[in-house]
Formats: sequence, C-alpha cells, structure tokens
Amino acid sequence: MRIGELATVTGTPVATLKYYLREGLLHGGVATAVNQASYDDTHVQRVRLVRALLHMGHLSIADAQRVIAAVEDDRVDTHTMFGVAQDALVPAAERTSSRYPAARAEVERFVERHGLRVRPDAQVRQMLADTLVAAADFLRLPPGASITTEAWDAVVPALMALAAHEVGNVPDGLPRAAMTEFMVDGTVVFEVGLMALRRMALEHASAERFT
Amino acid sequence: MRIGELATVTGTPVATLKYYLREGLLHGGVATAVNQASYDDTHVQRVRLVRALLHMGHLSIADAQRVIAAVEDDRVDTHTMFGVAQDALVPAAERTSSRYPAARAEVERFVERHGLRVRPDAQVRQMLADTLVAAADFLRLPPGASITTEAWDAVVPALMALAAHEVGNVPDGLPRAAMTEFMVDGTVVFEVGLMALRRMALEHASAERFT
Repeated sequence: MRIGELATVTGTPVATLKYYLREGLLHGGVATAVNQASYDDTHVQRVRLVRALLHMGHLSIADAQRVIAAVEDDRVDTHTMFGVAQDALVPAAERTSSRYPAARAEVERFVERHGLRVRPDAQVRQMLADTLVAAADFLRLPPGASITTEAWDAVVPALMALAAHEVGNVPDGLPRAAMTEFMVDGTVVFEVGLMALRRMALEHASAERFT
Repeated sequence: MRIGELATVTGTPVATLKYYLREGLLHGGVATAVNQASYDDTHVQRVRLVRALLHMGHLSIADAQRVIAAVEDDRVDTHTMFGVAQDALVPAAERTSSRYPAARAEVERFVERHGLRVRPDAQVRQMLADTLVAAADFLRLPPGASITTEAWDAVVPALMALAAHEVGNVPDGLPRAAMTEFMVDGTVVFEVGLMALRRMALEHASAERFT
C-alpha cells in the first residue's frame, strides 16, 4: 500500500507517519518509484505500537526508540523485550532524597518475600521506592526512615493471579511489534482501571467510617 | 507568624503564597498593620493541602477551588468533602465514544455486584468506564460492545480490605484541611505503589510464560 493508505488504515496523518520515518520509529517501505514506496502489514503493526508507546505510555521519542530497537533485534527474547518496554514506561525522576537507600532495601525485601521474578535492575523497583519515599515525606518520618510494605502483602496473590490471566491473554504467535503493543496497551489501559477500583474501595471505606 | 515565616515553615516561596491568596486558595491573615498580616497554623495546613491538590493531584486551579470550598463549608460532612476531592482527582476527558453506554452499564453492574458504596454520580465511575472503552478500542471489539469486569472480581476483596486499613489510618480529630490533605496524598501516593505492584506481577507472569 502507499503511504496515504497506511495513513487511512492506521488513522494517522501522513505528516505524522513521515515524522516516525525520520525519527527511525517506522522502518522504510520498499521503493517502487522515485519518491514513492510501498508499505505492508508490518508497517501497520509498527504504527500501532509507536502510537501505543507515545500516546498511551507517554514515552519520550528517545525511550520509544529504545523499545523499537529491542523489538527489531531478534536476538532479544520476548521476556527481555517486554522488560525494555516496562522500563521505558517508568517515568524518570530525580532520586536524590536521602530516603532512597532505606526505601530500596524495603523494596528488595518485598520482592524477595513474594518470590517475584523481577529483574534486579528493573525500573519498576525504583517506581515502588518512589512511593515509599513520597509516603515517608508525607508522614514526616525521620530522615532515612521508610514505611514498610506489609499492608500490601494481602493484595499481592490477587494481583499475581490477575497478571497471569492478562499475560495469558497475549495470543500465541503474534509478531513482535504486535506483542509489545499488546503489553504496553495492557499495562497502561488496565492500570487506570485498577486505580479506579482502588478509589471506589476508598470511597466505600470512607462511607463506612464517616457516615 | 508573618508571611515570610509561613513561607519557611511550608517550604513555599512568598510569591507562590501571594498567588494562592489572590486565587482564593488560601484565606487571608489577620491584618496587623498596613500591608502586613499575621498567619497561623490553619494557614500552614491550608498551604499543605493546596500543594497536595496542585502538585500530587495535578488539579487545575478551578478544581482546587472547588475542593477548598467544600473544606471551608462546615455544613458539608466529611464523607461528602472527600467525595468532592475524589471527583476533582479524576482527569477530565472527552467521553463521546459510542462505547460509553455499554461501558457505563458494565460499571453499574460491577458496583452493584460488590455492594460498593460509591455515589451514583461519582466521577470514578467514569474513570472505570474510560478503561473499558480504551480496552474495547484496543481489542477492536464491535461498536457498542464492552469488555466485562469479571477478571477483576477476585482483586476487589483485597482492595477493600486495604482501603479500610488506609482510611482507618486517618487520625481522629484532624482539622478538615489536614484530613483532606491526608486523603488526597494517600490516594495519589499509594496509587503509584499499587501500579508498581501490578507491573511487578506482570513481569513475573511474563517470566513464567516466556522464559
């Protein structure tokens, strides 16, 4: 298909597709004439992935390029490819607070306690530490102190069962770009749902306590 | 205390405090001389709340003003005050997709099934519907179709127990501004933690399936 048709199929303006091409987020088509190229289903899937990364995941162009590089490199196995995308989904933050060492130690204990198979350098560990640091600030704990993660323990088995269900829903034999899109969209979309569930539970608890 | 001391105690520049005063987010001090006013602990608490609303909750000035109005109006009971703040925390969105009616119906069934005490017009219902609409888009379901919420059922009891624990941690007898700050900070800070927990569970599930 020509670039105009790729635009129609993916619901993405031609100017945006050209931007993706320039930034290396979209691989080139096969040249069919001077200034004309042909695109196929791999381009459709790639555009969907790039949109998921930029619009659902709010990734920077640089982070999206890193994810695309992992998708393109067949020597990178599926689980590692997901890990690169998961790391890119964690917002960058200044982590200079003196509270981080205690918070990170608490995160390591949490991961260990639940036998979670999470890479030692996974950015999601920092994300959990960010929460512990913010909570300690908010509760005005003494410098260097961290809250514990025990209150969360009871939620973990249910979250692990839900995650197994969600990852089980990724169809077999999908192309790498489509798999990664599935993972990015699934992570971000259902995350909002889980936040909504928790907020409903908080409203319920407020009604039980205060009315 | 003078405004300079209020700035020091709350870690907020004087120019920012004056902006809060102009926008009606902070109540005026007691005039002690021409161009001079005295501030007290209610101002310290209010500044903390305003910062929580704007910086943790990412509220607009208009939304923050609505929350402050509920905090200031003693005829509004605690649970309703929390509801106003919870509503303000839900990001505005264009909800024009033809998928909304089915998604909203699914949300009502979910709330009913779990006996959740969530106001009929609570914005968090829209937030959950947003997820269902985005998921149906992503899965390319036919127009008007919604995914179901059954996969989440098993998580709800654990989330409700956690929420009861969190709301139970709000100290008795706090001033209204401090209570609302507690609720806003608690909602936002621990939400990031819960997202991190789910992402760890996803990475674990990916390791189980793909390695």
